[in-house]
Amino acid sequence: MSRIPVLEVFGPTIQGEGMVIGRKTMFVRTAGCDYRCAWCDSKFTWDGSERARMLTPDEVWAELVAAGGRRFNHVTISGGNPALIRDPMAELIALLHGHGIRVGLETQGSVWQDWFVEIDDLTISPKPPSSGMDTDWAGLDVMVRRLSDHGVHFSLKVPIFDDTDLDYARRVHRTWPEVPLYLSVGNPDPSAGGDVAAHLLARLAWLVDRVVQDEALNAVHVLPQLHTLLWGNRRGV
Amino acid sequence: MSRIPVLEVFGPTIQGEGMVIGRKTMFVRTAGCDYRCAWCDSKFTWDGSERARMLTPDEVWAELVAAGGRRFNHVTISGGNPALIRDPMAELIALLHGHGIRVGLETQGSVWQDWFVEIDDLTISPKPPSSGMDTDWAGLDVMVRRLSDHGVHFSLKVPIFDDTDLDYARRVHRTWPEVPLYLSVGNPDPSAGGDVAAHLLARLAWLVDRVVQDEALNAVHVLPQLHTLLWGNRRGV
Repeated sequence: MSRIPVLEVFGPTIQGEGMVIGRKTMFVRTAGCDYRCAWCDSKFTWDGSERARMLTPDEVWAELVAAGGRRFNHVTISGGNPALIRDPMAELIALLHGHGIRVGLETQGSVWQDWFVEIDDLTISPKPPSSGMDTDWAGLDVMVRRLSDHGVHFSLKVPIFDDTDLDYARRVHRTWPEVPLYLSVGNPDPSAGGDVAAHLLARLAWLVDRVVQDEALNAVHVLPQLHTLLWGNRRGV
Repeated sequence: MSRIPVLEVFGPTIQGEGMVIGRKTMFVRTAGCDYRCAWCDSKFTWDGSERARMLTPDEVWAELVAAGGRRFNHVTISGGNPALIRDPMAELIALLHGHGIRVGLETQGSVWQDWFVEIDDLTISPKPPSSGMDTDWAGLDVMVRRLSDHGVHFSLKVPIFDDTDLDYARRVHRTWPEVPLYLSVGNPDPSAGGDVAAHLLARLAWLVDRVVQDEALNAVHVLPQLHTLLWGNRRGV
């Protein structure tokens, strides 16, 4: 039977970032990633520190209902990179839709899956230089064109840590000007404790200032991570 | 010649709330309102404390370009209630579209204008009990149906100050479940100085907690006012 490596099922909470920021949602976090971003805020999905449970789509649904009852109609699938999972993910998406649930998903855009066109709110988040990862621009272009051709509700999201990342974002915006671009304030130390809100708001102010002055970044959204503003670096919220 | 009563033209900045939160935009704030909300954060638009300038649409455009140069492609029209203005507003919207500008507008939904269907991002923000205002539910229903029939990209937004306002939001959501509903954290003292971020984040946490526990509020977004988190109660940012 087809199974998904799951690290976390939690919610309801709100989506903290990107195109559906603020939306009430549940989260399913899958294990495994083809990237190793320097500032990854979910390293436990790929660094071997935590073991995933192999769950069938029905079992994932049971955990969602156990946690959320009837208090949700949106599920966000995140990772790791959930695009590493083929058939079981397609089954989970179909199962969620069958229950009348809207499905959001985030991936870095390194791997295509045919089920991308079934996602209701799809975020493609290519990683800027500060991540230490390389971008396959040609591959990403194929992906963006396919999603556009299929009329998928999707956006591009780039976390910004420094001016080099902003150069990268300009290239993204210049390459796909018709795709909504979300710039997200990078969280430089996802292991920091305590009140990180003041620090993140100062970084947001910096990013807003950069963007408003830049005519190469007009059709963009600048957003913080609401969950980090609210709960610092706590997990499961 | 057709003129608009204008109190402020400023930007570029980011939209601080609602359906296009984070979007880089310019603002045009019109004078005059048919409401007198207790907690209005722009009382200067209706309390006589400031005089509006009567500008033609061309003059508004000139001020937008003077402030924003080529650094914008979105303009948000706010008030006061900009729906009090008929023909000159229709002309301004057409002029902005002619320049390739996307147009957002916010109104409480007390007055219909035919140009509503031309707005790219339209926020209808009925006011909850804490405002001291009454809602014309039948009139609002006609408005929502017209907007839906015309395929307008619109949402409902309700600022929430207390549990009575949340009851009101439940009624809004129950009445028009297919319309995206944004709940915005109320700013109880828009004249407060200094650092209001910590206070507003605590209120956001309260509102998120209420919503996640409530199965009558599933397809909703909960959002803060980013501009207030960033800049407190300063104007013109």
